[in-house]
Amino acid sequence: MSVGSVLVTGGTGYIGSFTTLALLEAGYKVVIADNLYNSSAEVINRIELISGKRPELFQVDITDPTSFDKVFAAHPDIDSVIHFAALKAVGESGEKPLDYYHVNVYGSINLLRSMQKHNVYNIVFSSSATVYGDATRVPNMIPIPEECPLGPTNPYGNTKFAVETAITDFINAQRNNLTKAGNTAEAEKWNGALLRYFNPAGAHPSGIMGEDPQGVPYNLLPLLAQVATGKREKLLVFGDDYASHDGTAIRDYIHILDLAQGHLLALNYLRSNHPGVRAWNLGTGRGSTVYEMIKAFSRAVGRDLPYEVAPRRAGDVLDLTSNPARAGKELGWKTERTLEQACEDLWLWTKNNPQGYRQQPPAELLAALKK
Amino acid sequence: MSVGSVLVTGGTGYIGSFTTLALLEAGYKVVIADNLYNSSAEVINRIELISGKRPELFQVDITDPTSFDKVFAAHPDIDSVIHFAALKAVGESGEKPLDYYHVNVYGSINLLRSMQKHNVYNIVFSSSATVYGDATRVPNMIPIPEECPLGPTNPYGNTKFAVETAITDFINAQRNNLTKAGNTAEAEKWNGALLRYFNPAGAHPSGIMGEDPQGVPYNLLPLLAQVATGKREKLLVFGDDYASHDGTAIRDYIHILDLAQGHLLALNYLRSNHPGVRAWNLGTGRGSTVYEMIKAFSRAVGRDLPYEVAPRRAGDVLDLTSNPARAGKELGWKTERTLEQACEDLWLWTKNNPQGYRQQPPAELLAALKK
Repeated sequence: MSVGSVLVTGGTGYIGSFTTLALLEAGYKVVIADNLYNSSAEVINRIELISGKRPELFQVDITDPTSFDKVFAAHPDIDSVIHFAALKAVGESGEKPLDYYHVNVYGSINLLRSMQKHNVYNIVFSSSATVYGDATRVPNMIPIPEECPLGPTNPYGNTKFAVETAITDFINAQRNNLTKAGNTAEAEKWNGALLRYFNPAGAHPSGIMGEDPQGVPYNLLPLLAQVATGKREKLLVFGDDYASHDGTAIRDYIHILDLAQGHLLALNYLRSNHPGVRAWNLGTGRGSTVYEMIKAFSRAVGRDLPYEVAPRRAGDVLDLTSNPARAGKELGWKTERTLEQACEDLWLWTKNNPQGYRQQPPAELLAALKK
Repeated sequence: MSVGSVLVTGGTGYIGSFTTLALLEAGYKVVIADNLYNSSAEVINRIELISGKRPELFQVDITDPTSFDKVFAAHPDIDSVIHFAALKAVGESGEKPLDYYHVNVYGSINLLRSMQKHNVYNIVFSSSATVYGDATRVPNMIPIPEECPLGPTNPYGNTKFAVETAITDFINAQRNNLTKAGNTAEAEKWNGALLRYFNPAGAHPSGIMGEDPQGVPYNLLPLLAQVATGKREKLLVFGDDYASHDGTAIRDYIHILDLAQGHLLALNYLRSNHPGVRAWNLGTGRGSTVYEMIKAFSRAVGRDLPYEVAPRRAGDVLDLTSNPARAGKELGWKTERTLEQACEDLWLWTKNNPQGYRQQPPAELLAALKK
């Protein structure tokens, strides 16, 4: 059953590919727009192997102002966009901020302008918990609710924040202009979801689909995975003098399949409930320190993984643990997978695909998939 | 004496043209980049009539990614930019927010990318008091100091805020990257001024240079001027139920010549003191209600001007009065002209140039100029 067509920008990336899979499994048709800058088209084959369905790929760049017009003209049935395409390395954003403003902010402005032109009504935006910045600066904001005042602490977060305001201003204007013109039925079709997520983790339990960072990864679990395979000698722990029980920073790690499901539910909610623009946290509500994560992943691997303490990174904060109550109540979303499963799934993917998508997965995993 | 070359984007607009005049009078060479979307090239003749010096005009659009490369390639002596070019109507920004994000935010990203490529070190940015939003939401923030937490309440303000963060992130990155590379002398050359100004008012005392809004103006004084000339039947007062002594909103009106001087001093400060990125309020520190302004301008005109109360406008706030102490202390800047002078100068300009720059000014004003 097809329930509509969705454009997924950045659909070959880590979260984008899993969300594409979830959409296909739910009956949506999916068109991907991606420049393959930090990803591989091979993931599309894996999505097809798992779901039996294949998304269509447009290899376009979001900073090219003609890209989305081409996609929407070719697919007038698209009425919704899930927008992932972006640069995403916090550290790099401090060194090359203009690349981040250009790709993340200008790319999103391009997308919204094209959506307006082609009457593409719904946007689910891949925001980030980084928009909250250091939530401990405000009393009683851990775990972080959506009402927490925003205050990003690095250029990456600033670009996510700017896109949140652009989407909010755009959707509100579409609604107000149409309402003033007396067309309330058309007005309420315009909706936006700002999904602020915490730390995505894990891989597909089949072991054939996971995160495949090009170059040096910048998140804890992919780095730990490289230590486990010997690609990296040891993990650097950035700061052990935070005010947590073991001194390391606290994050909220969420299984990638749960996160993808949150995107699907948010899209369905926009299409059914017409809320205008609404922000939802997607996290587990449970925080884990870096040391706890090293232990959890070491258990999955079956041996202790070496690490070394290094200075704090600029822009990092003590605690990013979500309060996911709103998504639970409104979207009917809840996390179903544990941190242990995320670690096990990540290790299954990593040990079987040391070259990521640049090699075919072991025959036994493919055979298991067909059963 | 030439002290350097400065690019002024939007240099034919209201504040841009007066700042160009101030720069020329201080000995700077000025290159203007402007698409003449909401302005007239005739202002360049007026600047030359007053100062005896003529800025060069590049008629380019800031949303064209090649524009600034052309200007900087033609003028390798430019080391500083004063960046005005933007859409500026708060009300329109609520109806057409994507135009504002495209021109204001993307246009500024273009500019910064070009500055980076051509080593153009200093940027003075035309920000706005609107970045503070409703300062009464925080205790003890009227008059507003630069430390007031930012929180714009309309799309126009959101775009100014986004550009402030882009400039801050960009200048900080240039400095950090060069410092890490051991080149501290080069690092400190990169500087930015965020000038948050309050309500520009008035015209040149010669009566031949002033604000010339194309289409419907959206600020109080230009609207009042149209009422005085009969172009407009009456003034609409947007809200008389604010918590001020007479119920109308409080703004801080600053004479355009004082405001232009603030830009000159900020540029000189960047070039001499290398502060990195720094924000300065440019306002008088004195608030006036709408009713007080109607009275003040009526006195200048010599008769009472008709008005009618209308509902509040979305995004408007009660009080935007500046605390200008920082600019006084650091830039040595102070306002030298009164509100009465601003009203008199505006009326002199308005009554002598009912068609703005589309007609030549009266011969007696031109003759007086030569004395």
